[in-house]
Amino acid sequence: MISKPILTSGIRPTGDVHIGNYIGAMRDIIDLQETTDAHFFIVDIHSLTTHSDETSLAKRTIDAAKLYVAAGLDPHKATFYTQSVIAAEITELATYLGMVMPLGELLRCPTFKEKAKKHPDHVHYGLAGYPVLMAADILIHKGELVPVGEDQLVHLEMARAIVRRFSAHYGPLFPEPKPVENQSARVPSLTGEGKMSKSDGKGTTISLKDPKEVIEQKVKRAYSDPLRTHKVKPGHPTRTGCNVFHLHEYFSEPEEQQSIQTGCQTAEIGCVACKQMLATSIERTVVPIRQTYEQLTDADIHDLLLMGKEKAKVSAQQTIQEVREAIGFYMY
Amino acid sequence: MISKPILTSGIRPTGDVHIGNYIGAMRDIIDLQETTDAHFFIVDIHSLTTHSDETSLAKRTIDAAKLYVAAGLDPHKATFYTQSVIAAEITELATYLGMVMPLGELLRCPTFKEKAKKHPDHVHYGLAGYPVLMAADILIHKGELVPVGEDQLVHLEMARAIVRRFSAHYGPLFPEPKPVENQSARVPSLTGEGKMSKSDGKGTTISLKDPKEVIEQKVKRAYSDPLRTHKVKPGHPTRTGCNVFHLHEYFSEPEEQQSIQTGCQTAEIGCVACKQMLATSIERTVVPIRQTYEQLTDADIHDLLLMGKEKAKVSAQQTIQEVREAIGFYMY
Repeated sequence: MISKPILTSGIRPTGDVHIGNYIGAMRDIIDLQETTDAHFFIVDIHSLTTHSDETSLAKRTIDAAKLYVAAGLDPHKATFYTQSVIAAEITELATYLGMVMPLGELLRCPTFKEKAKKHPDHVHYGLAGYPVLMAADILIHKGELVPVGEDQLVHLEMARAIVRRFSAHYGPLFPEPKPVENQSARVPSLTGEGKMSKSDGKGTTISLKDPKEVIEQKVKRAYSDPLRTHKVKPGHPTRTGCNVFHLHEYFSEPEEQQSIQTGCQTAEIGCVACKQMLATSIERTVVPIRQTYEQLTDADIHDLLLMGKEKAKVSAQQTIQEVREAIGFYMY
Repeated sequence: MISKPILTSGIRPTGDVHIGNYIGAMRDIIDLQETTDAHFFIVDIHSLTTHSDETSLAKRTIDAAKLYVAAGLDPHKATFYTQSVIAAEITELATYLGMVMPLGELLRCPTFKEKAKKHPDHVHYGLAGYPVLMAADILIHKGELVPVGEDQLVHLEMARAIVRRFSAHYGPLFPEPKPVENQSARVPSLTGEGKMSKSDGKGTTISLKDPKEVIEQKVKRAYSDPLRTHKVKPGHPTRTGCNVFHLHEYFSEPEEQQSIQTGCQTAEIGCVACKQMLATSIERTVVPIRQTYEQLTDADIHDLLLMGKEKAKVSAQQTIQEVREAIGFYMY
């Protein structure tokens, strides 16, 4: 039997995920549980680097776990855990990795510079070490594949460099992890200005937790074809011609898109009807997730995370023992 | 019963200790096992920051342990262990402390700057984090007292600042550790140039492991009174007048010092005889340590360090559980 490649992927402790995240990354990442030995973990330790959220960490952790399970993450297929259950192993490994990681490279890292600018009061030692801790998250399971968005590619490159340096000192203990690049679907914002993004405000995104009425309201106000000033005028149903049509591409079936395109070009259907159809399509994606999310209890999540903890612990302890041996401590 | 204050003190993994170290610090630090709840640990993790020694870490660890036990460290009184046996707890704590420790302060730390200059190829993330890891070494046992030489005072101040910042985020879990300043006896170099220091070369120091003949040879070549050009001329037996007399102050009994002073001032004894007496005095300190060192087997040391491991582990695990709870992880 050929074993599946080991994959690791971190999940931020927030249940605040919008449909742009879902289509652009979350769905594809969850799907990797079918083809890889996936390790999904909620990054509660990383979240300490900026101290930016007031809601309790435990509450945010449960909420994120619930949403991912609702969105299809199957803890019987993947190893699903919170980062802190193997805090001891990860942070110990990170410490050793930090002994071979040049400080200058961390300080020159663009994401560090950006975060330092954004949180000038929180430029802590741990913030600079984010890529080192991330490398430890991957290497503690000898991860071979890591799904990364373009902003995380630089961190994965650093993890690969850390592996090479560690190997030079202590021997080849770790594979160099490779990126799994997602299709980078860039679901547009409801305002039509760029990609759907949390930082642009609630009105520009649709959350996986939004109820039907909210989805309908938000879609109703979405930016559409600026040249279609009257219902009797034909529209321009293309990616660039109409933001609402662009959204249909991600949420509506091909035959629905076809019928909308024809109806719009012939002015048979107007924007109100088209938006209603988009809202229905988005609901088709969102409603099952939201319903499962609401049905899951804290106790369900607890049991699932406890199961993941046991699995993660075995793998992490195995790795850290090998690392200690390779370093050559007298006793551990 | 009033409990003794908790003391922590790190020991570098080297059996290469000279009599200047012994008189200037080691002896006094070991004595603290009588009056405090002392935790002595060999800093094998810290030693990774510079990768500067070729000898195997395990070998150096055992050797250092042997020498300290020979010099009087009593593992039945103090908790005596290697840092790596609680690596998981220390590095985890250090990671959380690093999340509240401003990076700028670490980069401005004079010892960091000095080490960075000395080892330009090893300016790693872990090197900058030395004071954070040191703070974790102390706080993992809720250490209240730390023996520090003047060069380490700045690190202890940083540890105190880290405690204040951690408390502001997560509550008052740790006391602010206080320094135990030693008498800072500055045993002079055999060459008379400054303090006895390893970095000036073997000929300028006497090791705790030097055999009788080597001690005699080294003392014979020691710098003495430059104005006493002939045996018939009276000498200047003061700290500043004669380096050999200065050394007598640390190793000879008061009555011996008295008799040497008189003999030298009256030109009754010459430098050869005086040096022979110094060699004898130094041997009085060194011989019992060296003999015990030679009698101790690796198995003896193993058993002692294993005993210390059990004690250190209990204390470290207790602290890290409290820390995780204070941070508010959902599961750990």
